[in-house]
Amino acid sequence: MKRKVLNDDTINPCIKRCEYAVRGELAIRAEELREQLEKDPESLPFNHIINTNIGNPQQLGQKPITFFRQVTALIEYPDLMEEKNIEFTKKFFPEDTIERAKALLESMGGSSGAYSHSKGIPLVRKHVSEFIEERDGYPCSPEDIFLTAGGSQGVQTIIQLTISNENVGIMIPIPQYPLYSASIDMYGGKAVYYYLDEDNEWSIDGPTVQKAIEKAKKQNIDVRVLCVINPGNPTGQCLTEDTIKDIIKICHKERIIILADEVYQTNIYDDSRPFLSFKKVLKSMGPEYEDFELFSFHSVSKGMVGECGRRGAYFECTGIDKSVIDQLYKMASVNLCPNVQGQVMVDLVTRPPKKGEPSYELYNSEITEIYDSLKRRASKLAKFFNSLEGVTCHPPQGALYLFPKVTLPKKAIIEAKKLNKSPDTFYCLELLEHSGVCVVPGTGFGQVEGTFHFRSTFLPPEELFDDFIEKIKIFHEEFMNKYK
Amino acid sequence: MKRKVLNDDTINPCIKRCEYAVRGELAIRAEELREQLEKDPESLPFNHIINTNIGNPQQLGQKPITFFRQVTALIEYPDLMEEKNIEFTKKFFPEDTIERAKALLESMGGSSGAYSHSKGIPLVRKHVSEFIEERDGYPCSPEDIFLTAGGSQGVQTIIQLTISNENVGIMIPIPQYPLYSASIDMYGGKAVYYYLDEDNEWSIDGPTVQKAIEKAKKQNIDVRVLCVINPGNPTGQCLTEDTIKDIIKICHKERIIILADEVYQTNIYDDSRPFLSFKKVLKSMGPEYEDFELFSFHSVSKGMVGECGRRGAYFECTGIDKSVIDQLYKMASVNLCPNVQGQVMVDLVTRPPKKGEPSYELYNSEITEIYDSLKRRASKLAKFFNSLEGVTCHPPQGALYLFPKVTLPKKAIIEAKKLNKSPDTFYCLELLEHSGVCVVPGTGFGQVEGTFHFRSTFLPPEELFDDFIEKIKIFHEEFMNKYK
Repeated sequence: MKRKVLNDDTINPCIKRCEYAVRGELAIRAEELREQLEKDPESLPFNHIINTNIGNPQQLGQKPITFFRQVTALIEYPDLMEEKNIEFTKKFFPEDTIERAKALLESMGGSSGAYSHSKGIPLVRKHVSEFIEERDGYPCSPEDIFLTAGGSQGVQTIIQLTISNENVGIMIPIPQYPLYSASIDMYGGKAVYYYLDEDNEWSIDGPTVQKAIEKAKKQNIDVRVLCVINPGNPTGQCLTEDTIKDIIKICHKERIIILADEVYQTNIYDDSRPFLSFKKVLKSMGPEYEDFELFSFHSVSKGMVGECGRRGAYFECTGIDKSVIDQLYKMASVNLCPNVQGQVMVDLVTRPPKKGEPSYELYNSEITEIYDSLKRRASKLAKFFNSLEGVTCHPPQGALYLFPKVTLPKKAIIEAKKLNKSPDTFYCLELLEHSGVCVVPGTGFGQVEGTFHFRSTFLPPEELFDDFIEKIKIFHEEFMNKYK
Repeated sequence: MKRKVLNDDTINPCIKRCEYAVRGELAIRAEELREQLEKDPESLPFNHIINTNIGNPQQLGQKPITFFRQVTALIEYPDLMEEKNIEFTKKFFPEDTIERAKALLESMGGSSGAYSHSKGIPLVRKHVSEFIEERDGYPCSPEDIFLTAGGSQGVQTIIQLTISNENVGIMIPIPQYPLYSASIDMYGGKAVYYYLDEDNEWSIDGPTVQKAIEKAKKQNIDVRVLCVINPGNPTGQCLTEDTIKDIIKICHKERIIILADEVYQTNIYDDSRPFLSFKKVLKSMGPEYEDFELFSFHSVSKGMVGECGRRGAYFECTGIDKSVIDQLYKMASVNLCPNVQGQVMVDLVTRPPKKGEPSYELYNSEITEIYDSLKRRASKLAKFFNSLEGVTCHPPQGALYLFPKVTLPKKAIIEAKKLNKSPDTFYCLELLEHSGVCVVPGTGFGQVEGTFHFRSTFLPPEELFDDFIEKIKIFHEEFMNKYK
């Protein structure tokens, strides 16, 4: 048979090369098992798949925040605001939701069905800049804000922009969220790894970063960008001010710009480690750092919001050249605009109801309830992992994940090699086949050679949490016994 | 001053090279003028900007279709379905809107805030495939459907996938919608032009395409893809079955795959030129063409729907290798998923209410009203353009645009050159400065050298249409007199 014009050998080799584990082998197998369960519920030793492979809270039953959805419903169907039945209005749409919907509708020219400004609706960008000013205590211009269809789109755009040739190096942490390695592969640059320090709660060590730069330079790699994820994904650490300063100093000296992925900035569980934005720390470092170049990312997918499906996010440009911002604007304009429904959510998340406003009490109680529950679940899961034979896990400082280390028995490693799988992939596949729990093997994020990890969210709902834990426990004990 | 790390000379040169006229110089100037009017309404010879530079119906006052928005509001805020007040429900939410919302919510696991399958919600892809089957009379598999955040994202994805090296040629019509040239530039391929035949209502002439291929081959360009826009943008033609067959035959012989941009498939104004999809014509051509590779695009932004801001679209893969579909799936997964609100609109647009269902009458009357009005406005505007000195314009067969040819006086051409502008850009800028009407110069789409065109939508609302026309008329007469 004649080969197709478009085939594995004729497509863009950068695309072929790239890997994305979060929706990789494990997720695909989980999908197959779910389909099997639908057809034949008795055919497997479990009756449903628990997807802890992806930070997707509402998939696991987390309720959307009522205030957000009241406003978005009004924007979808403004006739609802004309209802004269006070009882109905009071029940479904507090006064401030109507005010918000009206202001947003006006800002978009009357309908959420129209293309907006390519950088995002000006009013929303203004609100985002006010949110950043209030958070950091430093000025922020709406002109430096770009709204995007999810944080991933923003990151990819910046990576695409910075890779000017195949020799451009982009530093990424190991372990990393694989969006970074995938984007670097897709746009044909070189990933330069710096290892996080597992023994020091996954923190970043300045000299380690410096050594990674030196090594890359010796290979004639032109290191231009350093990506940092804070709070960490998959590792959950929240960086200290000193660490952030160290990183900025090294990058400043080496003429490297920073991409700060801060999408988990409100998922903070350790009071001694508050979130500090890279922008805030940078701005505190004085005039020597005035010109430093930084892109910072935030999203509505995480936090207590969890509106992943809406694809709403923004990035802020700090110290970025006007000509580069113009190029970013052009790139955005080829896509016409980020989806307006995502933009609306960015507005609402960065401008939640204030004390005294009609929606405040309910909003605050919903956010608090989710936050408290996440904190409890995070801590419970970490404690549980640490109770398992051969497993160690840092208590969570932030984000939505734990990344425990598993010391696998030699026999298991040999068995994995026979099956041509990495040992952690083998462990995770076995976990999935036996318990229905889907996690992501450490291989997908990178890890020190010879160590094995996996990433799990702590998002299963609290009423099912013991069951979820029990499933892992039974599997892990059987696995360890089998391969002891 | 030290240059920034990221500057005009260090960024990706492919990005720097790319141009996108629809949101280019004219649109930016229009924005400035709008801001000026806001601050000082008396400072210009007009009191508002009329944006006919972009197909953005709801920006110009076109109302969203009620049925669509009723369902989307329910999906945003499902509590509304629990309302027991029958009077209220009857008023705002006919029974079928509730059924639709429930089925869609179930298909997305209960909430529109969750990430969906990366290719799109399975139920929505099933509905899309049924829509295509009904339209064309040939089978379509949901596995061959990818939902995307707007048609532009889909096109860019395929172009990124196919450009495996800088020698890959992608054929585009001239005039073209500049998404194509911009994407080819961004991903570092070579645009190969084939000219549309203005004298033959902008149709595509087989021998012209063949000659363009031969010429590219002589330059050692590896031509792999032909892009076709049908109905045409900016040119509005609707291709005949014979023309489509000619193009497929040439591409089949030359081992070129086709990208068929069919986003204007319901914007058809000439009964003698019905829309025929490339898929349908291809499938009618028999077993010799069984393996032919085609990507077809459709969107919720155009038609009578005009939900541009929602970024909802799909593409269908016909005859595409399984390994390539797997790569596309991986690319989609790096972006996690297309926004769910866009996906919902794709579902509703491809599965509108049927006769006998509660929402049918209103839906049908709204669609019909918009369609009839578009048809009237298109015809009126074409007639008007043809009445102007030195202007000729084909009657619209489809899409949302007219692309009149303007024969500019020599003096105007000289004046433009003095200002370092192309003559059509000069004409359009003058039109904007004098009348507030914003169109796009032909240069942005490409045109036969020495000819000048511009693209205008016919979207200004009917009650303002005479005013819009009058503004162009006064300007054009003055311009022609001035430079005669």
